[in-house]
Amino acid sequence: MLLLRLDPDDAAPAYLQIRDRIVALVEEGVLRPGDRLPATRALAESIGVHRSTVVRAYDEIRALGYLKSRSGSYSTIRHRARTPATRQVGPADEPSSSVVDWSGLAGPHAREVWALEADAWRLDRRGDVIDLERLAADPALAPTDDLRRCFKSVLVRTGPAALDYADPAGWAPLREVLAVRLRSHGIAVSSQELMITSGAQQALDLVLRLLARPGDRVVVEAPTYRMIHPLLRLHGAVPVEIGMREGGMDLDLLERVLEAVEVRLVYTMPSFHNPTGVTTDQAHRERLLELCERWCVPLVEDAFEEEMKYFGRAVLPIKSMDCRGTVLYVGTFSKVVFPGLRVGWIAGPRQAIEMLASIQHASCLASNTLAQAAAERFCARGEMEAYLRRIHRVYRRRLQAMLDGLRRHLPAGIRWTRPVGGYTLWLTLPGRAADERLWCERLARAGLLVAPGRAFFGSPPARPHCRLSIACADEAAIEEGCRRLGAELVRR
Amino acid sequence: MLLLRLDPDDAAPAYLQIRDRIVALVEEGVLRPGDRLPATRALAESIGVHRSTVVRAYDEIRALGYLKSRSGSYSTIRHRARTPATRQVGPADEPSSSVVDWSGLAGPHAREVWALEADAWRLDRRGDVIDLERLAADPALAPTDDLRRCFKSVLVRTGPAALDYADPAGWAPLREVLAVRLRSHGIAVSSQELMITSGAQQALDLVLRLLARPGDRVVVEAPTYRMIHPLLRLHGAVPVEIGMREGGMDLDLLERVLEAVEVRLVYTMPSFHNPTGVTTDQAHRERLLELCERWCVPLVEDAFEEEMKYFGRAVLPIKSMDCRGTVLYVGTFSKVVFPGLRVGWIAGPRQAIEMLASIQHASCLASNTLAQAAAERFCARGEMEAYLRRIHRVYRRRLQAMLDGLRRHLPAGIRWTRPVGGYTLWLTLPGRAADERLWCERLARAGLLVAPGRAFFGSPPARPHCRLSIACADEAAIEEGCRRLGAELVRR
Repeated sequence: MLLLRLDPDDAAPAYLQIRDRIVALVEEGVLRPGDRLPATRALAESIGVHRSTVVRAYDEIRALGYLKSRSGSYSTIRHRARTPATRQVGPADEPSSSVVDWSGLAGPHAREVWALEADAWRLDRRGDVIDLERLAADPALAPTDDLRRCFKSVLVRTGPAALDYADPAGWAPLREVLAVRLRSHGIAVSSQELMITSGAQQALDLVLRLLARPGDRVVVEAPTYRMIHPLLRLHGAVPVEIGMREGGMDLDLLERVLEAVEVRLVYTMPSFHNPTGVTTDQAHRERLLELCERWCVPLVEDAFEEEMKYFGRAVLPIKSMDCRGTVLYVGTFSKVVFPGLRVGWIAGPRQAIEMLASIQHASCLASNTLAQAAAERFCARGEMEAYLRRIHRVYRRRLQAMLDGLRRHLPAGIRWTRPVGGYTLWLTLPGRAADERLWCERLARAGLLVAPGRAFFGSPPARPHCRLSIACADEAAIEEGCRRLGAELVRR
Repeated sequence: MLLLRLDPDDAAPAYLQIRDRIVALVEEGVLRPGDRLPATRALAESIGVHRSTVVRAYDEIRALGYLKSRSGSYSTIRHRARTPATRQVGPADEPSSSVVDWSGLAGPHAREVWALEADAWRLDRRGDVIDLERLAADPALAPTDDLRRCFKSVLVRTGPAALDYADPAGWAPLREVLAVRLRSHGIAVSSQELMITSGAQQALDLVLRLLARPGDRVVVEAPTYRMIHPLLRLHGAVPVEIGMREGGMDLDLLERVLEAVEVRLVYTMPSFHNPTGVTTDQAHRERLLELCERWCVPLVEDAFEEEMKYFGRAVLPIKSMDCRGTVLYVGTFSKVVFPGLRVGWIAGPRQAIEMLASIQHASCLASNTLAQAAAERFCARGEMEAYLRRIHRVYRRRLQAMLDGLRRHLPAGIRWTRPVGGYTLWLTLPGRAADERLWCERLARAGLLVAPGRAFFGSPPARPHCRLSIACADEAAIEEGCRRLGAELVRR
């Protein structure tokens, strides 16, 4: 007869205690396949519980696979091929061996992206460092309280709808608010020509999913946004790099490229270009659009920092001139307000937006409703404008501090860009391209983090560079950073 | 001399009024390329503003592309090739013509997905209808207040970090909490073997991005989760459909398929299968895992409703037996708590998780931080458990009401499944497969929405079916729905 005793101090219900004792007996080999469990009535009496408790426990044990299907009146232990994994796990675990060869099965593009990620070297962030590396709004300026009120307002007023699936094209009120905001930048789109994405990166991914097949050529600036290169690799697309000049992408070269080969799309950042900080002028924008129209090549305008004009000079987005449906305009809240909310958008011709929304639907159903609803509140209540005014004042001073600091501390012969907005400047370091990593490591040891230039190119550039960002350092830190940079450059 | 007058009632600053008047004069052709603007001092005097106001206005006009670069002391109107689009936009706009042939440029897979979406027919939802179609937690049960407290707690305590980018693999505290939750289902994984995604759909998309190349075969159940088919099309993968029987996927057939052809992965929903509601038993799970191990084929276990066991019988997930690293286990909060937050997860071998996280990084940087942090709070504060207890009581009653109602009202000869949890039942309608749409439209006219069965298959099935869901109808509505269904089935 099976001897079981329940623990009166155990919070678990009796039937679960019975289940667990019997399963343990099977696992320990005390009960073996073919053994019979006691009749439910007999066991119930011996333990002192109601018979239904034992019946329920046996049902559980059967569901766990330890009993044969009930045939007669007895329950018989079954040979259970597998037992639940009981290994202890901890963060220090070595990768466990797997019968599946995951990296062998992975597609070539996925494998490349993985290798890129694994190869990336990270600067040591420990100690008293000044961070001129990071490119995202300063967390110290984050409108956390305003945003909390927006979330509260959404959850109280909009209620469960804010927790439900959104339209794959986005939360309608946010699309309306954004359409109005875009009009203030000269972009006349209806909310049908606008969709919401999970940040600008997902927007670019959707655009490539729509347009790029493996082997397709995509024109990018050199240098360009760092994360465009892994994304192109993921799609198997081939970057055609067009050098940046003082006034923007080299359009003479672009024209020759468009004449010579088939290009799937052109990707550009006309305002506060990342990493160089260059803003192109009206004439450059007109010619770029004209070239894309002439070859019927989609132009993807990444306006990730459209709002960040500190020196008050308006240059309208290329999309504002797009009367012939050539431009997909990508925007985001990430670099300006709240990176972690993952709210971006694409404005484009209605057919393109429809197709992009159907890809969004198939690949992730829709973007986060609550974040979209909170972003809508943040704009509609005027908090976005107030926040922008506040950070404009801050960043105008920081950019000035950076320009002043570089002029004051850097030795003659060093060149850097002079942006009118955004967060970044681009600095050409002395020596050979191969020295770049040494420079950046040396600066890190001197307490200054900068972004190494190499990552912003597909093919290795001719010179060593670095990107300086004012996003997360205050004026004093920027001044001190320029001093440290100057000291290292002089010491070489 | 240029005549300008400012409007004292206009809220816009003087420099913007000056800018807009002059731009309007250019657009109207009053000022032409080559014309000179008045000297700033002269214009300032004539209008009665400070000279710096006019200088600022001219800077703006220049930035907008209407003035030549300053060469001498005069500002000269430039030929501006493009003017901002000024068309009126509205929701009723026809798609505008585009020089880019978007659907022609689109890749074949993207085009297919778009066509699928466009072809989908929707049942008319108007009027007094009983919704047995929708598959997502009832908004009436949504824990809106609890969630509001979670968001507040995150924004107050975690602060700006909750607004910043998360790790591509997910918000570390949420991974920890989920690892503990999974242990209660017998799944022993460390947080390194777990990543957060933007819902289960994005999890499946990532898995396909890792493993599936165009033309690859993917085994799915027939019927299966409706949105897996567009997703496979997006990847160009070929579904191999294995019929569902009373006890789950037909494993004899699966074995023959695995013997005959190369399969990239097997996709299964062992618990509360969507749409049939079938839960497989321990023996079925063991054999399925064994087959995948034997052929080294990844098994994707979609546990979208793992928590929704109403009748108390535990069957452990296949992942709990996965000692050899074959199973990718996909979970989500969407079907149980808050679809719109887009928080799902994948548990799998560490190498697979690393590769999936690098694809996540390249394609969307990371999932929404704030939603992840709020979900972590929701679990860690015990609100998830309390909510689950509450909805279990509700759904147990609803499922019972559905099973009772069908028994009471449906004519003899109609067959349906009898699930032990989840939301859905599967009903085979009378007649030919081609009648299904007529049946569903007829039911809709009778005030009953059901999900037509066709959408859950890749190839057309032999019989007409529909899915009934208890997710968003209360017991009275379910009873009345069964009555309407029975009345229509009798009347045929």
